[in-house]
Amino acid sequence: MPVTHHDILEGFAGKERRMLSRAITLAEREAPGFPGLYDALYAQVGTAARLGVTGPPGAGKSTLLSALIREYRAQDKDVAVVAVDPTSPFTGGALLGDRVRMQEHVLDPQVFIRSMATRGALGGFARRTHEVVDLVDAFGFDRILLETVGVGQSEHDILSEADLVLVVLHPGAGDSIQALKAGLTELADLFVINKADQKGADRLETDLREMLELRFRDHGKDVPILRTVATTGEGVSELLGKIESKLAEFGAQGELTRRRQDRRQAQVRRILEQQLHNQLFGSEAQSGRIRKEQLEDTSLPPYTQATNLLKELWGAKEHSE
Amino acid sequence: MPVTHHDILEGFAGKERRMLSRAITLAEREAPGFPGLYDALYAQVGTAARLGVTGPPGAGKSTLLSALIREYRAQDKDVAVVAVDPTSPFTGGALLGDRVRMQEHVLDPQVFIRSMATRGALGGFARRTHEVVDLVDAFGFDRILLETVGVGQSEHDILSEADLVLVVLHPGAGDSIQALKAGLTELADLFVINKADQKGADRLETDLREMLELRFRDHGKDVPILRTVATTGEGVSELLGKIESKLAEFGAQGELTRRRQDRRQAQVRRILEQQLHNQLFGSEAQSGRIRKEQLEDTSLPPYTQATNLLKELWGAKEHSE
Repeated sequence: MPVTHHDILEGFAGKERRMLSRAITLAEREAPGFPGLYDALYAQVGTAARLGVTGPPGAGKSTLLSALIREYRAQDKDVAVVAVDPTSPFTGGALLGDRVRMQEHVLDPQVFIRSMATRGALGGFARRTHEVVDLVDAFGFDRILLETVGVGQSEHDILSEADLVLVVLHPGAGDSIQALKAGLTELADLFVINKADQKGADRLETDLREMLELRFRDHGKDVPILRTVATTGEGVSELLGKIESKLAEFGAQGELTRRRQDRRQAQVRRILEQQLHNQLFGSEAQSGRIRKEQLEDTSLPPYTQATNLLKELWGAKEHSE
Repeated sequence: MPVTHHDILEGFAGKERRMLSRAITLAEREAPGFPGLYDALYAQVGTAARLGVTGPPGAGKSTLLSALIREYRAQDKDVAVVAVDPTSPFTGGALLGDRVRMQEHVLDPQVFIRSMATRGALGGFARRTHEVVDLVDAFGFDRILLETVGVGQSEHDILSEADLVLVVLHPGAGDSIQALKAGLTELADLFVINKADQKGADRLETDLREMLELRFRDHGKDVPILRTVATTGEGVSELLGKIESKLAEFGAQGELTRRRQDRRQAQVRRILEQQLHNQLFGSEAQSGRIRKEQLEDTSLPPYTQATNLLKELWGAKEHSE
């Protein structure tokens, strides 16, 4: 028997994780009924704190996340992990390997772990990142960890869904700190030097501080640098303490509210554009406002053609105003 | 003195490569006057054959491209290379290193090489891939090689601009052939086993044939597999011969025309959507049809809000029809 929206809404109320998974799948597949389901759950969104976690491969992100989850569970907080894995066009899911390091939490009913591939060109997830994280939030987790090893757009998309962004580095990275892209540094609210027992941790911290000093000198942005050894748990409870105090600080400053408002506006823009796209070019359900022959016409160069099509589209409206 | 569009048009007529570079820069920057320039050059687009070349890092793509260029130059054909490099968010331009292998052609006035970074979230290039390749075409090159080491969306974007797609592999890849993503296999018109003097070439070819057999059994798609050793030039002139005969075959079958039509329609759609985006949400030049207060209003859940905004937008038009 197929699962109805009613089942899912009841499942959310009754904390059935299976129903959360179902709802996420509907989002990823861009199921036609998803908008109605999402809007129905929307009132419950907004109680979870969302931590974005990124860093180069090898920094030990998954081990660190696992250690963080342990700490949160010790405080009786429910935790969800949404991990975004870019799929290589050459090797299906090679980048998913890390996820096994979180296995210890798989059987804990208060921990929810969902891995998603960005699915390259299909982009279903990229378009619905926001909605997926909101579903997890609406389900009632206290903390949502958004993990990415991503490169480029998808990484940016997921980190922009976070209330607080952690960038995890390790001493042996080989990459010079100067090479850390400015965009990433600007997203970072907190740096973690993991594997801090390895040679080069002091140097990495000095370099990081110099870079932050240079970049944020005039902005007054305070970006703490913490050290952890995720494999032994060293520094993890201090890290959690700092995360929580940063969240409290952001709350008090109105920063959390500002980030949430930005995310919501970006979401409404995105939905609008997608609906408009379907209206213009049609979908499986209906034909579009722009006819096939209009698109196939090559009598004008492309920009001129597009401008004319757009004028036609608005034409009647302009006259009636 | 700033370069005018008139200068650029004259530069194209006089084969001044500096002006091609200027035009590409305007495209990448999404300069406000670019659409007019592009449309003015549009009549000259359509004479170049475009070869997409992709493959995993280490397959020897750049060395192979260099060898191919040498062959084309020996036939007195002008060649352009447009290489798309995804930028890592952790290390600025690390993936650009390969490009030095094409250095031997840098001083040849009949060879044009342009590397572009996908620029992560900015996406300027991604939105203008099509236009950049068209500019190079309009300038009058016989062959355009579109090279990518990309992962995901940008790779897909550039390969969809090609008339013929080559996928380059090498025996030591370590990746099992089964892991080659279906999407990539479907784009491939020709496989090249480079470094074919290395152990494992026979096995790779057998595996490839099996996979192709499985995937295209019912489609009747003939995807040749060629072997090269780019460093010695072995097999390169045979590869070029096969490329040219495939192009001729695609031309005779109407496949080239079909691909070009698809590209143009996708382009017009893209331009339309971007213009519409600016009209809705405003640009530097003008305010949008959707007011800031409308976006900021949170009294309704997001999908309902977007649907209502869209109805309002079309409202007057519907009534007047």
